[in-house]
Amino acid sequence: MESNRRIIDTKGAVIISSSSVVGGKEFEGPLGGCFDFHDPSDRFGQKTFEKSEGEMQRLSLASAIGKIGARPEDIDALFAGDLLNQCVSSAYGLLEYDIPYFGLYGACSTAAEGLMLASVFVSRGIARRAAAVTSSHNAAAERQYRNPLEYGGQRTPTAQWTVTGAGAFVVANEKEVTPDTVLASVVEAFPGIVVEKGITDAANMGAAMAPAAADTLLNFFAASGSSPDDYDMIISGDLGKEGMSILGEILSASGIDASEKLADCGTMIYDLEAQDVHSGGSGCGCSAVVLASHILPQLRRGELSDILIYGTGAMMSPSSLKQGLAIPAVAHLLHLRSPEAKYK
Amino acid sequence: MESNRRIIDTKGAVIISSSSVVGGKEFEGPLGGCFDFHDPSDRFGQKTFEKSEGEMQRLSLASAIGKIGARPEDIDALFAGDLLNQCVSSAYGLLEYDIPYFGLYGACSTAAEGLMLASVFVSRGIARRAAAVTSSHNAAAERQYRNPLEYGGQRTPTAQWTVTGAGAFVVANEKEVTPDTVLASVVEAFPGIVVEKGITDAANMGAAMAPAAADTLLNFFAASGSSPDDYDMIISGDLGKEGMSILGEILSASGIDASEKLADCGTMIYDLEAQDVHSGGSGCGCSAVVLASHILPQLRRGELSDILIYGTGAMMSPSSLKQGLAIPAVAHLLHLRSPEAKYK
Repeated sequence: MESNRRIIDTKGAVIISSSSVVGGKEFEGPLGGCFDFHDPSDRFGQKTFEKSEGEMQRLSLASAIGKIGARPEDIDALFAGDLLNQCVSSAYGLLEYDIPYFGLYGACSTAAEGLMLASVFVSRGIARRAAAVTSSHNAAAERQYRNPLEYGGQRTPTAQWTVTGAGAFVVANEKEVTPDTVLASVVEAFPGIVVEKGITDAANMGAAMAPAAADTLLNFFAASGSSPDDYDMIISGDLGKEGMSILGEILSASGIDASEKLADCGTMIYDLEAQDVHSGGSGCGCSAVVLASHILPQLRRGELSDILIYGTGAMMSPSSLKQGLAIPAVAHLLHLRSPEAKYK
Repeated sequence: MESNRRIIDTKGAVIISSSSVVGGKEFEGPLGGCFDFHDPSDRFGQKTFEKSEGEMQRLSLASAIGKIGARPEDIDALFAGDLLNQCVSSAYGLLEYDIPYFGLYGACSTAAEGLMLASVFVSRGIARRAAAVTSSHNAAAERQYRNPLEYGGQRTPTAQWTVTGAGAFVVANEKEVTPDTVLASVVEAFPGIVVEKGITDAANMGAAMAPAAADTLLNFFAASGSSPDDYDMIISGDLGKEGMSILGEILSASGIDASEKLADCGTMIYDLEAQDVHSGGSGCGCSAVVLASHILPQLRRGELSDILIYGTGAMMSPSSLKQGLAIPAVAHLLHLRSPEAKYK
């Protein structure tokens, strides 16, 4: 029987631009100097946090397109999503762009899902260039999922901190660009299945997402015949400290030792202790901004050669939690390669 | 300058199975006899309306896969979405399926968006078979977007009635199936851009969506060099009576007379007067169940030869409306052809 867990060959897809926009807390973190734009007030000139999030999306896409001297009409497809109900920060934030629009919902896996579909579109000649944009906003997410920040609710040790940030990427076919414009090539992609292992604690999304992450990684290693040794880093977005620990245990139990390769966008973006963010960052914006402004430059410079990066999404809603349901999660994986490893 | 409004060639993609699940009101409507399953209580054995919606998704996919004697592991990709916050009826409803999962959000355009991406995946050899599933539930949508049904709120004449229903489709590559198993071929697809023309009345989604519908149709006719005369029907899902009237006016003003070809899933599914649904049906489930159980059989039998069907989504949220924002909308189009027209 042929498996339905197949690697998607995204041959020819290369990321040629990226941009990141973050809030004050992210700017104060260890990667602060990497990001393209920040606003210490988290407001971006808007009256509501939801509109601030949309404005971050607009700004990140404008910047990603502008960096390569392109125009919106050079982009044939736009894959976008966020955490807000009905994904309104994408729909409103990107409204000024007359680019065919594919709305996505994958919680924190949305950046990977969008990059995957954008890579498919350019790899298969459906789009000349495609863009992926995602965002999250701490204040908008907290009042939607939990409580408004003004309540000053206590957070548990396993809780993650929703990143205020938006990241945008432009993907092209390598045939249409010169090698020196490539940040990284998208070698292959591996979509995940939805996994739910009984975790009902929304303050422990790491535990809910780790089984989905393990499922994707183990099936990808099996399908590709590769092992952690083949990659410089295997980066999740965003399991947090708690989820990383659980993932390590699941992989070990499966005979995979990846401990020296595993990293997490959620633990990179903040100083967990000093910034009091408990288990680490999360949100659609977290992996997007860390990839856009910290990982891709390392690939571009050849400091990293081959990496796996996978987005992990916890797809509960406040209503589903109140109705007693456990948290379903999904993990979508990309294999990225530096232009140096590819072209030299 | 090359336009970024490009037709997606989905050559080879054929719909080989579909199934529909509806509630009591839909069963009582003019198409009642067409649907595969219904539950007069709208409950589907579940304690909450949200779980009922998930169960409809599960049932529709199980049926679509079962009709062709396939197994879930024969499906390589699943594109799913719904109207609920964080798209929970898809995430929970399809949880038992170990099929790579792509979550979508396009409001009532989700069925078309999912079918488009599924067609791309099989057309380009990324998946052997791909499925698209969408749903909506009147009671779940009303309490999320407006008021719980128990409040008995008055509805305005332009309001649409959210359909209780879920539809599922299986798409394959024609190379892998025999012509007699084809319900319709997906000739080409045309994704829409997000359009917002200042409509703030959530009880008049037709007015908000009609400009997006017109934009997609006019750009598709221009890009394809075709006209309404080339199609037997041009079907929206779901503009309702009000939106259809506005669309007709916009098209007329652009010199396109399509009045004899235009139809709408939202006005087909109910008897608007007798069932007191005002402008007609809406919701991710509406176009899905009408296509699955009313349109596809007509294509299959050769009663229709070539049609355009486009999903129209109004992508506001209750929060965005309260914050005074107008309603953004998108329309995704598919060109479907009967197997008779294709193979004979």
